[in-house]
Amino acid sequence: MVVAVDANGADLGPAEVAAGAALAAQRGVRVLLFGPAAEIEAPPTGVEVVDAPLSIAKSPDPARAARANPESSIVQAARAVAEGRAQALVCAGGTGAALAAGLFNVKRARGVHRPALALALPVPGRPVTLLDVGASAQARPEHLVQFAFMGAALASVLLDVPRPRVGLLSNGEEQGRGSPLVVVARAELTERLAAAAGAAPFELVGNVEGGDLTSGVADVVVTDGFTGNVALKVAEGVSQTVLRAVRDAAHSSPRAKLGGLLLTPSLRAFREQVDPEGQGGAYLLGLRRLGVVPHGSFTRRGFSEAILRAARGAQEDLVGRTHAALERAGALRDSPIRTGR
Amino acid sequence: MVVAVDANGADLGPAEVAAGAALAAQRGVRVLLFGPAAEIEAPPTGVEVVDAPLSIAKSPDPARAARANPESSIVQAARAVAEGRAQALVCAGGTGAALAAGLFNVKRARGVHRPALALALPVPGRPVTLLDVGASAQARPEHLVQFAFMGAALASVLLDVPRPRVGLLSNGEEQGRGSPLVVVARAELTERLAAAAGAAPFELVGNVEGGDLTSGVADVVVTDGFTGNVALKVAEGVSQTVLRAVRDAAHSSPRAKLGGLLLTPSLRAFREQVDPEGQGGAYLLGLRRLGVVPHGSFTRRGFSEAILRAARGAQEDLVGRTHAALERAGALRDSPIRTGR
Repeated sequence: MVVAVDANGADLGPAEVAAGAALAAQRGVRVLLFGPAAEIEAPPTGVEVVDAPLSIAKSPDPARAARANPESSIVQAARAVAEGRAQALVCAGGTGAALAAGLFNVKRARGVHRPALALALPVPGRPVTLLDVGASAQARPEHLVQFAFMGAALASVLLDVPRPRVGLLSNGEEQGRGSPLVVVARAELTERLAAAAGAAPFELVGNVEGGDLTSGVADVVVTDGFTGNVALKVAEGVSQTVLRAVRDAAHSSPRAKLGGLLLTPSLRAFREQVDPEGQGGAYLLGLRRLGVVPHGSFTRRGFSEAILRAARGAQEDLVGRTHAALERAGALRDSPIRTGR
Repeated sequence: MVVAVDANGADLGPAEVAAGAALAAQRGVRVLLFGPAAEIEAPPTGVEVVDAPLSIAKSPDPARAARANPESSIVQAARAVAEGRAQALVCAGGTGAALAAGLFNVKRARGVHRPALALALPVPGRPVTLLDVGASAQARPEHLVQFAFMGAALASVLLDVPRPRVGLLSNGEEQGRGSPLVVVARAELTERLAAAAGAAPFELVGNVEGGDLTSGVADVVVTDGFTGNVALKVAEGVSQTVLRAVRDAAHSSPRAKLGGLLLTPSLRAFREQVDPEGQGGAYLLGLRRLGVVPHGSFTRRGFSEAILRAARGAQEDLVGRTHAALERAGALRDSPIRTGR
């Protein structure tokens, strides 16, 4: 199993990504690392460095940059996947660059309308997979239907949820509530699952609300990329704000300082549970191969996790299983048994 | 100044709402309280109880219930406002009932396309006004334009922000990013503010992301009711989840328990700052009179705050000021100086 990794774009520099690759290589994954060879010294066994100093990670228009710069590290990494030299893609250089390079080179999976970005939100207890968190700003009902299958396959293959409960993010739980997009998608999804009958790969729990990202009623929450991106950023912002307030409170008096010190070991377990590095980053679904996009702020631990997850996704054939589930349900694009709406 | 209050729908019962009304009456506000007189004993000076035992607070279809039940407490309260017996409306019986009864009886303000629900999110430091949090599931650009003026007027009149910074909630900060709705609304809003020239009642900070609900870059965040409702519920859910995790951590060992005890007084200040009761509830904007919708779970403190805010909004003519600002900017419906897009 070989994973192509773009080492450009990480806040801590390409050497930190290389260190993550080294950790993954110790666990048996082979890595093709695309980045500035001058900044990556003495790669360990299992990591092959391809000199690709040009980065489009900070480009304001990643789609254009990916087209214009075939020699950039992310495009080279995506091409390695497209040509079969690697079986999965990891890109620390931003979701825009990963999405553009992936679409142009790895290309959409057969029968998939469009890719989605999925994030396993580090909720205490069990992660909740939210998608799309921003691959497209708008979606049609048939996109949300496919996202449900894509997210469910991710949860069962990579997040150890055998039969995921899938919800549609909405502004109310009742059937008939929600935007027209949600109402139509819910009806279509119900129809698709009925078509799949006993082989339905997930349970549709219906509409869920914003509070259900943390309530535990769903393992996978499906929405358009606009709403998903807003929801994700709100969750991150509020979580950081509350934790900062607790930290500030623990510095507000000598008494509170002592309290904070005594509480620290217990809070550490929680912090580790909700540490996004533990989830490896966002998953780029709907291409012919799996992509993983660790956050640029990650340390080697997060990059290693991203590479390991990418390798596992390739090994367990996440893409093939997603396709099979979509096919059984008649939810592929131009599916012959698709009854339409 | 008289405030019409629907006492039905509160989790703690009508007597708790009445207790809140009594607190507000002590501060000089007169209250017309619509609810089951049998459950409200000996109203204090300044509170007049109108026997209206019928509640539509739990109705699954509030719009229909409001039309079908003119004798219900919320419809009677809204009628009191429409007929001039009161100058503002407070309803503990749910936003759906308040919105329906308000629309049918108090009616939309002249030139306003549709009402919006605004919430002052209790962010530490200074509240951030988010609207629409769920009055309508969908919006057109001209609605978002009006929401910006409505939210800015609320922030400057009731939340002590002299010149609010207004942002449009989006999935990216850059101009041109976002859904077509956001892109068009931003362009129209820029045009309106230019039309208002020196009299522009707020500063447009452009697109903001979900994380900016807590980052302090905007005082007012404008979005459609679907996205706003999701964002609000995500924020509430994540905040509760993190605080619960901190509480659980403080019960996980004797050492942590002691730490939690020492930290409690400092955390109390934070909890008070973010307590939604301190903000009185959601604001129903865009009607001929101001409405305030405290959360059903509130105690007398929250209901009293809601009534005091409603009275202050009426006293300071929030509705009239909103109208004047919309008029100056040519953003009224069928405004003669509207240049169109």
